[in-house]
Amino acid sequence: MPLGERSPGDKGESRYCGVESEFDGDVPRLLSFNISCGGFDFVVSPLMNPTYRPSLFEKEGNESSVLPFAGSDLILNPSQWSSHVVGKISSWIDLDSEDEILRLDSETTLKQEIAWASHLSLQACLLPTPRQASCANYARCINQILQGLTNMQLWLRIPLFKAEDDSMGTSTDDMTDSWELWNSFRLLCEHRSQLSIALDVSSTLPSANSLVRWFGEPVKAAILNTECFLTNARGYPCLSKRHQKLITGFFNHSVQIVISGKPLHKVLKGSADPATMDNGDNVGCVQNHSLRPYLEYVGYLYQRLDPLPEQERFELGYRDFLQSPLQPLMDNLEAQTYETFEKDTVKYTQYQRAISQALIDRVPDEKASVITTVLMVVGAGRGPLVRASLQAAEETGRKLKVYAVEKNPNAVVTLHSLVKLEGWENSVTIVSCDMRHWVAPQKADILVSELLGSFGDNELSPECLDGAQRFLKQDGLSIPSSYTSFIQPVTTSKLYNDVKSHKDLVHFETAYVVKLHSVARLAPTQPVFTFTHPEDSPQRNNQRYKKLQFEIPSDMGSALVHGFAGYFDATLYKDIHLGIEPSVATPNMFSWFPIFFPLRTPVCVHPGSPLEVHFWRCVGSMKVWYEWCVTSPSPSAVHNSNGRSYWVGL
Amino acid sequence: MPLGERSPGDKGESRYCGVESEFDGDVPRLLSFNISCGGFDFVVSPLMNPTYRPSLFEKEGNESSVLPFAGSDLILNPSQWSSHVVGKISSWIDLDSEDEILRLDSETTLKQEIAWASHLSLQACLLPTPRQASCANYARCINQILQGLTNMQLWLRIPLFKAEDDSMGTSTDDMTDSWELWNSFRLLCEHRSQLSIALDVSSTLPSANSLVRWFGEPVKAAILNTECFLTNARGYPCLSKRHQKLITGFFNHSVQIVISGKPLHKVLKGSADPATMDNGDNVGCVQNHSLRPYLEYVGYLYQRLDPLPEQERFELGYRDFLQSPLQPLMDNLEAQTYETFEKDTVKYTQYQRAISQALIDRVPDEKASVITTVLMVVGAGRGPLVRASLQAAEETGRKLKVYAVEKNPNAVVTLHSLVKLEGWENSVTIVSCDMRHWVAPQKADILVSELLGSFGDNELSPECLDGAQRFLKQDGLSIPSSYTSFIQPVTTSKLYNDVKSHKDLVHFETAYVVKLHSVARLAPTQPVFTFTHPEDSPQRNNQRYKKLQFEIPSDMGSALVHGFAGYFDATLYKDIHLGIEPSVATPNMFSWFPIFFPLRTPVCVHPGSPLEVHFWRCVGSMKVWYEWCVTSPSPSAVHNSNGRSYWVGL
Repeated sequence: MPLGERSPGDKGESRYCGVESEFDGDVPRLLSFNISCGGFDFVVSPLMNPTYRPSLFEKEGNESSVLPFAGSDLILNPSQWSSHVVGKISSWIDLDSEDEILRLDSETTLKQEIAWASHLSLQACLLPTPRQASCANYARCINQILQGLTNMQLWLRIPLFKAEDDSMGTSTDDMTDSWELWNSFRLLCEHRSQLSIALDVSSTLPSANSLVRWFGEPVKAAILNTECFLTNARGYPCLSKRHQKLITGFFNHSVQIVISGKPLHKVLKGSADPATMDNGDNVGCVQNHSLRPYLEYVGYLYQRLDPLPEQERFELGYRDFLQSPLQPLMDNLEAQTYETFEKDTVKYTQYQRAISQALIDRVPDEKASVITTVLMVVGAGRGPLVRASLQAAEETGRKLKVYAVEKNPNAVVTLHSLVKLEGWENSVTIVSCDMRHWVAPQKADILVSELLGSFGDNELSPECLDGAQRFLKQDGLSIPSSYTSFIQPVTTSKLYNDVKSHKDLVHFETAYVVKLHSVARLAPTQPVFTFTHPEDSPQRNNQRYKKLQFEIPSDMGSALVHGFAGYFDATLYKDIHLGIEPSVATPNMFSWFPIFFPLRTPVCVHPGSPLEVHFWRCVGSMKVWYEWCVTSPSPSAVHNSNGRSYWVGL
Repeated sequence: MPLGERSPGDKGESRYCGVESEFDGDVPRLLSFNISCGGFDFVVSPLMNPTYRPSLFEKEGNESSVLPFAGSDLILNPSQWSSHVVGKISSWIDLDSEDEILRLDSETTLKQEIAWASHLSLQACLLPTPRQASCANYARCINQILQGLTNMQLWLRIPLFKAEDDSMGTSTDDMTDSWELWNSFRLLCEHRSQLSIALDVSSTLPSANSLVRWFGEPVKAAILNTECFLTNARGYPCLSKRHQKLITGFFNHSVQIVISGKPLHKVLKGSADPATMDNGDNVGCVQNHSLRPYLEYVGYLYQRLDPLPEQERFELGYRDFLQSPLQPLMDNLEAQTYETFEKDTVKYTQYQRAISQALIDRVPDEKASVITTVLMVVGAGRGPLVRASLQAAEETGRKLKVYAVEKNPNAVVTLHSLVKLEGWENSVTIVSCDMRHWVAPQKADILVSELLGSFGDNELSPECLDGAQRFLKQDGLSIPSSYTSFIQPVTTSKLYNDVKSHKDLVHFETAYVVKLHSVARLAPTQPVFTFTHPEDSPQRNNQRYKKLQFEIPSDMGSALVHGFAGYFDATLYKDIHLGIEPSVATPNMFSWFPIFFPLRTPVCVHPGSPLEVHFWRCVGSMKVWYEWCVTSPSPSAVHNSNGRSYWVGL
């Protein structure tokens, strides 16, 4: 029975909790004991008698006898198998043994068991941890198997382990960092999306920085050994604060918990710990399952989770979902798009604050009644900045003449209605024109625009505002006055596989707007390109080139960079800013998700060896585009040469 | 005028020699001096006045004036430009300068000059050496340019330099090994085939092992500075033995020589060195070109080259040309194919020697007249092994009964004609049958077969001979008695680009038969799979798995592995072998070219850090295939999983 119900809309799998069991030929009894009595949702159980060896089996002339599987699809129907059993592949297999017989037996058994699991429609099988760091033959076999699997996931069991003292000298040793084992295995298996991870959590946890990496990897289950648990004052199992934090992270990333091991806490019968749940629906057999207190503790942690804030709940469906960035200059936005973005009150409040401050600065109180400030909203859309400007004027008692310049003729229709509806006819002039070509009847004190994309300049704000600068007074100002893009390297298996699934170069050379969730941020962000408005330099040029060096934390261990997360921060006016760069992000603003620049070939980075990255903003006569590459630790290709795959039309 | 004529059929470009010159606005005079008078074939010359800077040019308001190019297509027609001039891009450019103005000027100039060279249909432009090891912006620009170039080659000028003491600690310094610079540049440029190398040769040469690498790279020109030259007893320029050897290597790999620098040898006028060529066709102005003695010395080296052996000449057209391996089991060979292979007398001589030795060993002299040996040629084709067997019998005076088993019904027709023609009716029985299914009327003393491919077992000799083993006597023997495949890691830009040009995965997961020429062999070969016949083990199994570790020489420097060259060696009988493994290859045999296994992503290897490679031979019910991968220094994908791209039909 699930651990609990999360906020509506959360489809995470983490509300199910499983239990690892020994081989049992009587599967119905196994399920009845663990599920009906124990309260678990599923059982991770061996499918095959562990004494079976194909080479012995053949020798005994058993050609006609059946393989020693636990149960069949007549004993339990496929839907029961599928919803309650995760197949545990025989743990004796060793595909990289020096012993050829053992190696061949292992391959035969692995293929037989997975074929059987697939026949039963199991959702997943748990693969034993590779016995050596050198696991090429195991990976080769799994890769062959994955090629033919359609629905089933394979969970590779990986101990959550990293030696603290991971100096350069010991890096060739086996298993100083289990992430390396995972990384080799999945690279050999071509990064296939059906290969995922079951993390074996023990009582000692590696550094917080090294744990971060796993949240960018496809972890589907965390196996909690009973040895992880401490004992609370009343004798019940509980977890350390660090373990609790980790489990909370797992819950938030749809990772299922599996309890494993022998019961180590003798809980008095009938005296349930008040801190843990007891739904009362297990009367009759609850006392019989000795792992139940662990499940109850996990359920307690689950139910203690903070509810998701409304905005997060709204964005759940967008998590790790790749979207093409808007091209509002080349394409005209639709009403629905305007509608959505206009609801971002936090954003317009910031604009209104910036405009108010600018009005006060430009017009002293004593001249408020004589000076009329000319404000032009360039890219007015359906008018939200017109409204913010008028409210700022009212708030500050300044006189304001507003020009609302908009190139989308459909939005202009709405603007006219709005002006009429609100009675703004005297203060607002609507101009149906591209700001780059408009011949303004007078010059402006203030240009207000909202042309920024997730990466700041990626919707061509610089080019548009350069065009509008002609009709700004010599001492006029622009809101925003500047903006900067930021990037950071990330691990994100999910997004990498989604990009790869298109099987072409174009998708690897495209930037995506995406609500990043299953992502490991490997280093703090760094600024990339900055644009300032107005820009008076005679060599004004919107091409940019930036070289960046990222260092991953020394205790993180190595990590795989699948690409770069991009953000922006904009200064609207003086200290009033607006943006999504994580360390200074404007709270409760929802207009922008981050941007993601993928790498065609993921790059493995190591502590102490910087990741050197280059980003270019290139400008042609018809389009603007980015190119990017890595030069250290090893050079990549320059991505998106000449904007061949991804560009923004001028 | 060319340095000389090589053997017919050699289309190498290396018979042309160029000269590097300063900027000269008068191109006809420049060509007349260097080509008509100097005797050179082409001039490497700047196209643009070296004082030109775009930013200054614009400032001077020269919008309407022409760019300061040397000459135009009216002064010299395009075919003259194309055949006599290699454009030398302005050497002041620095695209990775910290100075933004210089960087932008450099980009503008680079693009203007290459556009101009392309307009003139030049065959190549010489790009200046990157000024820093960090050359991402330069590479990005060249990559953009290459995307639009159709015919012109760009030669990146790279000094032939490697510090001797290249310990791990100094490897991050700039330019301890100029190969690293090239490698970064071409990886950033996506390995494009129009980007090639002009090596700047100086008086000091790096280690022989480090030079090897360049023969797998696209070196198109070697620029010999006059400072490279020594002075012979008569005051004429000459080269050290090591330089001579290098130049010979260049000649054999179609690398053109370019003479550069100031004349440093004052050769007495009119007293041509007898050791050098003097064709006498330069009367009138020969004395005026002070670099002529260097050209004459290079011509002397060229003419001194050993002529190509006949077999090499025959194989010229196959050099570095990818072919799909034959599938003689699944497909029936054509008459032309039989015809070609039957001409390999060396091969059949080895077989005849092996059969003779076996006959003598099995039948003592005293029983030669009473014992008839039963020999079965399995896969008799059009009969060359039948002939070799009968000749061996005659040579040794043994009595022989031959069965010629052949599954190709077309070849069987030819076999019948042959037997009739030669009058072999009494000793030869022709069997039209697949050896795997034949029910033999008696058992054989000797099985003779020629079922080997370039990689030994890759034409399924093991599977065929396993099928034939049924009708071999208990003490019978097989010729060949065993065979082993070998691989070694290679650099081969040419083949990598040819594979890549197909733009699909299938071609990167296919093995090719190829006459390897522009290849750098990075480490000695190592054995992979061995098969022995007859094989009596009850666990007989033709699946194989081999893990190999290659170390590149410590003084080689780093190198890029594009894939693996494969070979075989077969023991026919006792010490009589036959094969193409380079260290023991049978001389003058032409039936097999090596095999090439590509890597989807080339792997950079470093001395002291082994390259770990895995090869599998997998056997299914309908096909046999190989899988392969690299696990160190970084894991690759397992190639050709389940034989999805490349397999041999059973």
